[in-house]
Amino acid sequence: MIYVVGIGPGSEAMMTQAAKDAIQNSDVIVGYKTYIKLIENLLTDTHDIVSNGMRGEVERCREAIRIARTGKTVAVISSGDAGIYGMAGLVYELSEGQDDIQIIPGVTASSASAAILGAPLMHDFCHISLSDLLTPIDTIMKRVRLAAEGDFVICFYNPKSHGRPTHIHDAIAAIRAIKGDQIVVGVVKDAGRDDESHYIFNIDSIDYDLIDMTSLVIVGNSNTKHEYHRMVTPRGYAL
Amino acid sequence: MIYVVGIGPGSEAMMTQAAKDAIQNSDVIVGYKTYIKLIENLLTDTHDIVSNGMRGEVERCREAIRIARTGKTVAVISSGDAGIYGMAGLVYELSEGQDDIQIIPGVTASSASAAILGAPLMHDFCHISLSDLLTPIDTIMKRVRLAAEGDFVICFYNPKSHGRPTHIHDAIAAIRAIKGDQIVVGVVKDAGRDDESHYIFNIDSIDYDLIDMTSLVIVGNSNTKHEYHRMVTPRGYAL
Ligand SMILES: C[S@@+](CC[C@H](N)C(=O)[O-])C[C@H]1O[C@@H](n2cnc3c(N)ncnc32)[C@H](O)[C@@H]1O
Ligand SMILES: C[S@@+](CC[C@H](N)C(=O)[O-])C[C@H]1O[C@@H](n2cnc3c(N)ncnc32)[C@H](O)[C@@H]1O
Repeated sequence: MIYVVGIGPGSEAMMTQAAKDAIQNSDVIVGYKTYIKLIENLLTDTHDIVSNGMRGEVERCREAIRIARTGKTVAVISSGDAGIYGMAGLVYELSEGQDDIQIIPGVTASSASAAILGAPLMHDFCHISLSDLLTPIDTIMKRVRLAAEGDFVICFYNPKSHGRPTHIHDAIAAIRAIKGDQIVVGVVKDAGRDDESHYIFNIDSIDYDLIDMTSLVIVGNSNTKHEYHRMVTPRGYAL
Repeated sequence: MIYVVGIGPGSEAMMTQAAKDAIQNSDVIVGYKTYIKLIENLLTDTHDIVSNGMRGEVERCREAIRIARTGKTVAVISSGDAGIYGMAGLVYELSEGQDDIQIIPGVTASSASAAILGAPLMHDFCHISLSDLLTPIDTIMKRVRLAAEGDFVICFYNPKSHGRPTHIHDAIAAIRAIKGDQIVVGVVKDAGRDDESHYIFNIDSIDYDLIDMTSLVIVGNSNTKHEYHRMVTPRGYAL
């Protein structure tokens, strides 16, 4: 049996009971060290931990499938929601029809970050990952432009890492070229974890140094407001 | 104090501890009857319930704010995530800078539905609401077309109701005109509730009668597969 578990953004209070149960009922826990640390409190001496640091996702999933086939119950851990830039897809792709797989959804980074910023996701929105490891940057930038033309609220996952420090800057520049300068942008770093922080900018004065690998960037639509230190996208009610 | 609480898709197992705590620590619970029923197990005799059936969201939020100003702790209940087509925005818009408001995020319908269908949200995706009560249908359809051109996975909220039974049909027709007939579509009805059901179709053979007000429709991107009874969007790893 394999559970692919979304543990939410960080704190135990943001995990679902289903996620906790899956972890507690598993023999083996597979995941990044950072994520294992977030669920430390749920682990006991009976849990085997398979944590390869930053070694590849593909190997980690293959290992989980191999162990499950020996009859053990395995929990593969993702942060946020397991089905959003997480491990769910890979486990299905590699397991070739194996049927004892269950995905446990979780609170994804955009939901968690939105709740910290105010209510920026009250209207139609997109998720775009700025990681070009698996997607050509041209495809990514095309999506950014179409999302801007549609006036979607845009959530950027993987906004920055060592290999691609300028993608977030380029993406925001493309949005600005289409929508102009009256756009609110929220940044949340480490939502639900120690050292959580957040910032709300106007699009023309973003401090890009505050954005890193564990940040989520939310670009508002043309109606999104920054008021009372909150980022709120009106749903459209006449008030 | 006002908590705006996302209770997840339905079952208690899909709620976060933070959501349960907020409900249990509140004096007054404000929300639709359907949602109150979903959290029945968490309520005690000390809770006052304000449940106006289908009466307007705006009135309900005003009432919550009024009660909170008398010194009581109020939980305003949304299904899924409170910040996604939920009550979070309205509470902020109506409360004019009041600062004792906390949003508790939850597992939104798209995450819950994706976990049931397989792993359709592993690549960039959009949320679009097909309710035209607050958004002109032209804006909605423009977004549908741009999302299709960007090959986003598309999650349709509010796909159907009495006033707008054909929007989902029209939206899918627009996508088909742009992307052709090799597209997988998943439908989940009542995720996490009694009578949960789900279906996976090819885009040219959707049974629209199976889609209703409490369904979530996920249209795959051009790489999304229907294999082993699951809908999976590859992230792009070379396997
Ligand atoms: C590989 S993706 C994993 C997403 C995760 N499965 C989810 O649903 O949130 C990693 C990216 O998610 C975002 N992220 C994950 N956890 C976060 C947190 N606690 N605070 C802010 N952003 C986070 C960041 O953009 C990060 O670069
Ligand atoms: C007003 S929106 C509320 C969305 C909610 N705040 C969330 O984050 O899931 C109502 C729409 O959400 C979707 N929805 C909500 N709960 C659902 C469930 N349990 N199963 C499937 N779809 C659901 C349906 O598309 C429904 O028409």
